[in-house]
Amino acid sequence: MMLERFFNPGSVAVIGASREKGKVGRVVLENVRERFRGAIYPVNPGADEIDGMRCYPDISSTPPVDLAIIVVPAKIVPDVLEECGTKGITNVVIISAGFREAGAVELETRCVDIIRRYGMRALGPNSLGFIDTRSSLNASFASGMAIEGNIGLASQSGALCTAILDWSTSRGIGFSTFISLGNKADINENDIITALTADEGTNVILLYLEGIKYGRKFMEIAGSATYQKPIIVVKAGRTRSGARAVSSHTGTLAGSDAAYDAAFNQSGVIRAESVEEMFDYALAFSYQKVPSGSGVAIITNAGGPGVLAADTCESLGVTITSFEQRTIEALRSSLPAAANIYNPVDVLGDARPDRYKSAIEAVINDDNVSGIIVLASPQAMTDMKRIAEIIVEVSHTSASSKPILVSLMGGELTQEGGRILSMNRIPNYEFPERAARAMCMMIRYAGIAARTCANPPDFDVDRQFVKDVLNEAKERGDRRPGVECLSALEKYGISVADSAIAITREEAVAAADSIGYPVVMKIMSSEISHKTDVGGVRTGINDADEVRIVYDSMMHRIHRYVPDARIKGVLIQKMLEGGREVILGMNRDPQFGPVLMFGLGGISVEVLKDVAFRIAPITEKDADDMIKEIRAYPMLLGIRGEEPSDIGAIKETLLRFSKFCTDFPEITEIDINPLLVFKKGCAAVDIRLTLEE
Amino acid sequence: MMLERFFNPGSVAVIGASREKGKVGRVVLENVRERFRGAIYPVNPGADEIDGMRCYPDISSTPPVDLAIIVVPAKIVPDVLEECGTKGITNVVIISAGFREAGAVELETRCVDIIRRYGMRALGPNSLGFIDTRSSLNASFASGMAIEGNIGLASQSGALCTAILDWSTSRGIGFSTFISLGNKADINENDIITALTADEGTNVILLYLEGIKYGRKFMEIAGSATYQKPIIVVKAGRTRSGARAVSSHTGTLAGSDAAYDAAFNQSGVIRAESVEEMFDYALAFSYQKVPSGSGVAIITNAGGPGVLAADTCESLGVTITSFEQRTIEALRSSLPAAANIYNPVDVLGDARPDRYKSAIEAVINDDNVSGIIVLASPQAMTDMKRIAEIIVEVSHTSASSKPILVSLMGGELTQEGGRILSMNRIPNYEFPERAARAMCMMIRYAGIAARTCANPPDFDVDRQFVKDVLNEAKERGDRRPGVECLSALEKYGISVADSAIAITREEAVAAADSIGYPVVMKIMSSEISHKTDVGGVRTGINDADEVRIVYDSMMHRIHRYVPDARIKGVLIQKMLEGGREVILGMNRDPQFGPVLMFGLGGISVEVLKDVAFRIAPITEKDADDMIKEIRAYPMLLGIRGEEPSDIGAIKETLLRFSKFCTDFPEITEIDINPLLVFKKGCAAVDIRLTLEE
Repeated sequence: MMLERFFNPGSVAVIGASREKGKVGRVVLENVRERFRGAIYPVNPGADEIDGMRCYPDISSTPPVDLAIIVVPAKIVPDVLEECGTKGITNVVIISAGFREAGAVELETRCVDIIRRYGMRALGPNSLGFIDTRSSLNASFASGMAIEGNIGLASQSGALCTAILDWSTSRGIGFSTFISLGNKADINENDIITALTADEGTNVILLYLEGIKYGRKFMEIAGSATYQKPIIVVKAGRTRSGARAVSSHTGTLAGSDAAYDAAFNQSGVIRAESVEEMFDYALAFSYQKVPSGSGVAIITNAGGPGVLAADTCESLGVTITSFEQRTIEALRSSLPAAANIYNPVDVLGDARPDRYKSAIEAVINDDNVSGIIVLASPQAMTDMKRIAEIIVEVSHTSASSKPILVSLMGGELTQEGGRILSMNRIPNYEFPERAARAMCMMIRYAGIAARTCANPPDFDVDRQFVKDVLNEAKERGDRRPGVECLSALEKYGISVADSAIAITREEAVAAADSIGYPVVMKIMSSEISHKTDVGGVRTGINDADEVRIVYDSMMHRIHRYVPDARIKGVLIQKMLEGGREVILGMNRDPQFGPVLMFGLGGISVEVLKDVAFRIAPITEKDADDMIKEIRAYPMLLGIRGEEPSDIGAIKETLLRFSKFCTDFPEITEIDINPLLVFKKGCAAVDIRLTLEE
Repeated sequence: MMLERFFNPGSVAVIGASREKGKVGRVVLENVRERFRGAIYPVNPGADEIDGMRCYPDISSTPPVDLAIIVVPAKIVPDVLEECGTKGITNVVIISAGFREAGAVELETRCVDIIRRYGMRALGPNSLGFIDTRSSLNASFASGMAIEGNIGLASQSGALCTAILDWSTSRGIGFSTFISLGNKADINENDIITALTADEGTNVILLYLEGIKYGRKFMEIAGSATYQKPIIVVKAGRTRSGARAVSSHTGTLAGSDAAYDAAFNQSGVIRAESVEEMFDYALAFSYQKVPSGSGVAIITNAGGPGVLAADTCESLGVTITSFEQRTIEALRSSLPAAANIYNPVDVLGDARPDRYKSAIEAVINDDNVSGIIVLASPQAMTDMKRIAEIIVEVSHTSASSKPILVSLMGGELTQEGGRILSMNRIPNYEFPERAARAMCMMIRYAGIAARTCANPPDFDVDRQFVKDVLNEAKERGDRRPGVECLSALEKYGISVADSAIAITREEAVAAADSIGYPVVMKIMSSEISHKTDVGGVRTGINDADEVRIVYDSMMHRIHRYVPDARIKGVLIQKMLEGGREVILGMNRDPQFGPVLMFGLGGISVEVLKDVAFRIAPITEKDADDMIKEIRAYPMLLGIRGEEPSDIGAIKETLLRFSKFCTDFPEITEIDINPLLVFKKGCAAVDIRLTLEE
């Protein structure tokens, strides 16, 4: 069910409203009352009136209610929810704490059951509540109302909410909706993204998350939302020590950070490194239009700050563009000879505001320019206020919708200019690097919004065959089957090295004869993980006699060195020569499902960790990106006269592997190592699976 | 000559003082006069008095002067300097612009000549001037005085100075000395570092640089200074587009960024990524003592912000330490049961200030804790002011000198607490991530200050032999000599593959017989860069007959495919098998001299750019660090049963190579590629040099 009316109710009940000043039940009531124009019903069996308002003994005795805010002790919450359900109230905010976060998991589960049973939607428990500036509703116990604006925010940390609310108010940053998610027992980030995406008053969605509850759903919802508006996330618990702190606080099962990064990437979500960064970006998206290209122009009255901004852009892969000839001519004719008319444009330290005007007007019409960064340091002739006014004028009169981000650098001297910019919705940053970084994120988002929508390709496969292979392994209690699963890959259209399993010496000979020499022989046993160490792998076997000798010697050695190992047989495999080793892997993440990994074999994976991750199922673009993302990618193209590897074959294999991983949730881990890639084609040589218990 | 009196003069002349309000000559005079307690002499031939002060017609008619501030038009500056020199004035600030930065290089050179001739020291030209808060001297045309403090700052951008001055004043950040370097015609960053290191009133040195003029000297001076106080640098022009902007603005020949990074690393200089970061770090060093260890404790009233701080620390390699048992007990007994008593300590959202007190007191005495980050978000019970007071109290009464960094999160609600912290020299940051980052830099600096001082080792070498080899190459006009220089390496004690040069077929046979088979044969010619492509390299030659056949065929092919190549002979080299390929290289940087490079051979260097740089000469620790710094380092230790490489031999070779590069400045580039490293020992197989023209 959607949340349309949730944040914009006609009437509100505060269940647990209190007469006692300072108590949460009183603070919430006062907050609601301060601005909300709809009906308000305090509920408290022990009071007839609170602060002049009629008070109701229970929720069943009030007139109809759109939203109930629950502030009663935790143990009473289930009863209150029942009453709400009976009355037909569909939207509730549970501010009460003392649930999962305090170990009372069962109490929370009971609440969820009631909520589900009545088809209600509930925010919390353990939530600060929410603020909606359009309906002027402060349904929280935060000390103060948010400023009206178009930023939608949801935070899993209530404490961060209070800090951000206070901070943003002092900086004039406005919100459409400001939500404390609490324990996310019912409403979670996915519901919020859906609601805020549909909300015309919201331009940008900010999320502070410690974990994501339904990762697949998140990707689906966010992946669709980011075509319409940017989503910026701060995900805490990035590193191990951070993750430890998360789990000791919220009980969130934090997924691995690589999975989160992949999921954000695939769904077009921008990850900010800090809360400050998140708001730097939010300000740009809140105030300015998204650029339509990727060329940045910088206009400055001082070389140094211009260089700092340019450095930041380049380090984020954004180009300080070259100007068109007509722009250069326009700048040349309007600026002094000593000015730098190339990008970054330096209007010089003695620039009066008119020079800024000429420069911005020239640059804003340049087709290579998609966004403009204006920097001003307070020098002798610098009139910060007038420069701010000029920027506002140009941005209002210009036909262009190119974003302008500003850094008026300084303190006292920039106050008035900063105020003018802020009033006119031009983002102003304390330092040039921050303006540059925000511009780069706008450009990144422009690419996200314009990306082509594609579905993972489907393939004709023999699912039942694989099912049978996996079931056989399960039945014999083998949780880590190996090369015998190559045939399963084959049924998914993945090329594998020609192989057969032999359980007698003569079967081995027959298999080798049929495959053709030379062959490789490998012992098959789940109990032997380092086969080479016990003589369990032999390469370059050239004829039937050699097969017999190797077979006997292999059995002899195995029985001697690992007498307890159960032997499934001997794999006879065509010996492939040449080719580059790559690895395809999968690890099932509790939140996001199958996380695919791709990398070159050998040291690339083991030492350099030069690998790319994506959540399956992947699209063709995802597969392309995975391959190109690894640092060693040029090796696949062929360097120093080496032949190029068949990248098309890798891509096809990745896509089919993605389907394989998606189709069999009972597999928790896979390594295809190596997949040999040739000039034409590729072949999986070895595989190791782990099945769930 | 030192700058002791420069920033603390007894008397000041303003040459070019002006009656006209708003002119630079008037602003400077007013700035000097506002606070300076020494004698002030305005100099202007066209005025008898300025604003009630007696004005002198020229500098020769004033009483003795310690510091002359020159604000006359550029073309008159040489004459004024002559007069100053004649009068015996040793310290001058040249604020006048219109020199090198405007293309008038010759005019600047003339000034420098005069300055040198009289043994004067000059700041500028094209400088904003400087401010010294201890002598209350504002010798600049900046609009305002700096607040007194212990941060020493020098900036190559005057515009950044004005911005920072205004910004820092509004934030209460204080300076000892605040210097605009201008064109650095005489006084440069090296003089400033020396002066500020000797200055007891300066705790931390900040530099904004676009280029470094004398790189070697910088390393020497900064390398010694950083034992005493931290140096934090923002170096602009990090990326290519940034560097372009630098050179179009200041004429600074920007060294490559890798060289700057290596130089900063080797001299203990901390590089900040932005001006904001630089001040975040400066505030910590300015207010707090340097920690004596590396364990960080976090105390917070909310999980989320604690996780954000922990994430930042871990991402910078700093440990969120485990507490001693007694600390855990102390926290357990003083905090509520629901509190997290492990690190990060969560005193819970309803924490009153006393809980912060107990937590800080418990943690500050823990031997595993070297620095404390205190976070507070404004929740119902949070008394920001009292929390600030408690932090101040604990930090004043505790016997410990462990640094405490704070983030009171919010806006209006944190104002008073922030003011209390600031007044009591406790750094307070808007966001937890910034506090954490500053703490990490303090810990990094603690390691820098405690590092062992070592000199590059010296070796007994045959310098003359190498000189002769290089001279021979020069004489025959060969700027790119190759394998014939292996013998030069050998004279520096670097192992090389046994080799000899043959210029006839029979010489080749004799050489091969003497070296012992199998051998490798390589054509020697500066004109053939890809020898393999033209059949110029043959390996695995097993006897004299084969040598003859290969010799003839090689000559035949070379004459056919590259008829114009001059052949220096054929190298006969012992064929070495096994061993790991590494590369040693050197590129001479205009500012810093020889930049050494180390990496593994093949894709590590060419594709992955997995290399380490240091400026030669290097110490043993530098060599160790270079080897360990590359991502592929574990390969040298031996992975998956491979034999380890002789890291000691690599280290020795790096140190000897460093001496080689240092001893012969006429070599601009070297590649030793490969150096083969074995289980024991190593051997250079090929070398390519470039000699300066």
